[in-house]
Amino acid sequence: MPDQILDDISHRRYNPLIGSWLLVSPHRTKRPWQGQQEEPSENKLPQYDPECYLCPGNKRAQGEANPQYQNTFAFVNDYSAVKEEQQDYTTETKSDDIASRLLRAQPVTGRCYVLTFSAKHHLTLADMTARDILTVVETWTRIYASHMSPRHPLRDRAAQAVQSIPPSEHAEVDPARHQLRYMQIFENKGAAMGCSNPHPHCQIWTTSTLPEEPGKELAEMTKYRKQHGRHLLEDYVKLEIAKGERVVWQNEEFLVVCPWWAIWPFEVLIIAKQHIRALVDMSPEERLQFAEAVQEVTRRYDNLFKTSFPYSSGIHQAPLDCYGQEADMSWFHMHFYPPLLRSATVRKFLVGYELLAEPQRDITPEQAAARLRDCGGELYRELPN
Amino acid sequence: MPDQILDDISHRRYNPLIGSWLLVSPHRTKRPWQGQQEEPSENKLPQYDPECYLCPGNKRAQGEANPQYQNTFAFVNDYSAVKEEQQDYTTETKSDDIASRLLRAQPVTGRCYVLTFSAKHHLTLADMTARDILTVVETWTRIYASHMSPRHPLRDRAAQAVQSIPPSEHAEVDPARHQLRYMQIFENKGAAMGCSNPHPHCQIWTTSTLPEEPGKELAEMTKYRKQHGRHLLEDYVKLEIAKGERVVWQNEEFLVVCPWWAIWPFEVLIIAKQHIRALVDMSPEERLQFAEAVQEVTRRYDNLFKTSFPYSSGIHQAPLDCYGQEADMSWFHMHFYPPLLRSATVRKFLVGYELLAEPQRDITPEQAAARLRDCGGELYRELPN
Ligand SMILES: O=P(O)(O)O[C@H]1O[C@H](CO)[C@@H](O)[C@H](O)[C@H]1O
Ligand SMILES: O=P(O)(O)O[C@H]1O[C@H](CO)[C@@H](O)[C@H](O)[C@H]1O
Repeated sequence: MPDQILDDISHRRYNPLIGSWLLVSPHRTKRPWQGQQEEPSENKLPQYDPECYLCPGNKRAQGEANPQYQNTFAFVNDYSAVKEEQQDYTTETKSDDIASRLLRAQPVTGRCYVLTFSAKHHLTLADMTARDILTVVETWTRIYASHMSPRHPLRDRAAQAVQSIPPSEHAEVDPARHQLRYMQIFENKGAAMGCSNPHPHCQIWTTSTLPEEPGKELAEMTKYRKQHGRHLLEDYVKLEIAKGERVVWQNEEFLVVCPWWAIWPFEVLIIAKQHIRALVDMSPEERLQFAEAVQEVTRRYDNLFKTSFPYSSGIHQAPLDCYGQEADMSWFHMHFYPPLLRSATVRKFLVGYELLAEPQRDITPEQAAARLRDCGGELYRELPN
Repeated sequence: MPDQILDDISHRRYNPLIGSWLLVSPHRTKRPWQGQQEEPSENKLPQYDPECYLCPGNKRAQGEANPQYQNTFAFVNDYSAVKEEQQDYTTETKSDDIASRLLRAQPVTGRCYVLTFSAKHHLTLADMTARDILTVVETWTRIYASHMSPRHPLRDRAAQAVQSIPPSEHAEVDPARHQLRYMQIFENKGAAMGCSNPHPHCQIWTTSTLPEEPGKELAEMTKYRKQHGRHLLEDYVKLEIAKGERVVWQNEEFLVVCPWWAIWPFEVLIIAKQHIRALVDMSPEERLQFAEAVQEVTRRYDNLFKTSFPYSSGIHQAPLDCYGQEADMSWFHMHFYPPLLRSATVRKFLVGYELLAEPQRDITPEQAAARLRDCGGELYRELPN
């Protein structure tokens, strides 16, 4: 394929993971920017902030006090988007009723956690060592394990995994009251991504329904597997390693790429090289290598524009409760969606055309990958105090 | 259906126009907001700004000077996302080649316009009379007409429409060099929506491909029509008028609703009550009524938080070049996606969970509609000078 020319012409690229297209206009970054500028972030935060509801010992919104935790600390979100108990709601579906076709609703229950990455208010993942991040990965693994359905095909793997991880006093969670379907682990980092507290943390929303995005991916991965006998991301990993131009970094177990179909300017995907279906499927060595990959991505991001780089990130893996072959069709990966485009203060807005017609990007994923490859090494800044 | 309970419980709603779900968490607005605040907008703009590249007589990026136009003025975007001429690019598809399955691209050509709504720098649609907005609607109609394929089933309607509209000296455009497939008219208003120039204007991106969103809608509308004999939006309009709780405003020809499946807090849909397939399908009276609907929406938005309300909006209608029954399956409507949630400075971020899992909203569309119903009447502010 004559790939070079895609640096110069407008084109669409196809995202096989969700089955949709986006528009790429490589020449468009030349336009001057006169719009909104973000605040460049400078880390002047204290290690402990008495006003922060996530710091150890402090009081939270509903009056409860946080324990004196060391690194990870999990609690149920005081303003959860979904709850475990609520009034019953059933929709009668009369097939001939227009309202039941056009005003469809279904109840959603679940549990939402907040999970801190560290006791230190002024850290981000990029400031943490791979060992520190490993503790976070281990906590994710234990939380995933405690929500799995009794009939989950990865139950034995989970038991092994949990055994190999030391318990974390403040991040153990109770099993949910009803079996839940999916666990979405995600982080909003930076004010530009709607984060209201810089204390390093993620959220974990666990729901009785399979959400749209992982649902679409699972459907596309299943289709591909049935049609071609191999896994979509298995083929994709091999292809990208062979091509090289979109690869940002890799170790033995994980590949970091700017995917062919990236929407956000410096969007990145961490993909397992072997068939890992969920967090509980990883060996201790794989967990460490995954932690290294997360560290590499977040450091390179910060180095790129010499700022604390905003992003939303999240893990896609097997559902907590699997139907049919869903566990086997799943392929562990982590998305990073960062909004910055040209500098610490100029972001890409996904607005009018993007919302109404189709996502549009300016630089190519190949250009983004080349820049992120060049950002390796130590973190550009030192921590205050 | 026991709708009342949906004010209290978390649930998902289905969007039949694009075939996907979103999460609604009505209780969630109670959480305090400590994150990013938007600048409240206060209109201190001059009628004419010598630095604005859209004001009459001023020079644009590439050195060309704008004419002394009165209201609408159209020109090809100096930094177009797509262009009419570019190097050829064809992808050979070898069905057994992994790269041709996973690295799919197709060329996109087209033409992007910028269109001003008024010569006055300090106006917005909300400040304009329905007659002023009618001129904008007329210009959209003429521009759509001059890009239609020779075999378009609405050609005769277009000829009639164009005859009934006085030409606008500075907003006439040449036919495209190659036949294009779709025209996306959209407006990004306000810094929060990535707008880099407050001078009232929209963009019109015209492409050789049918973009994702109107493509999905067309597919769902076609499916519905084949299955139920009626149009999806025809049924939906009747249903919403009968129910009333999501209706914001209506006149004889257009309905303004907060749709059942709204994602953005105060998202609104203007829907034609009769079967209007595209702009060129409207009578002069319908164009005026559409202009009134746009005015009602934008005024109510500004009145809601007493600010110049940011949004992205856009029109969905029949493609410029229609295959099979596409023209007949199309139903004219206009989306408004505004980000503000609680005040002039606190917005809703569609970030982590929304990007990784599924869109999530806090207040219900019924609550939003009730508030927008109460915001009618005159615009809360007067224009400066
Ligand atoms: O063309 P503009 O107004 O400079 O740019 C704005 O709208 C475009 C179309 O929605 C987006 O792609 C850009 O990210 C946004 O900043
Ligand atoms: O829960 P938070 O951090 O207050 O809220 C943030 O993340 C949520 C999940 O992506 C979003 O729904 C909110 O709009 C955003 O502000």
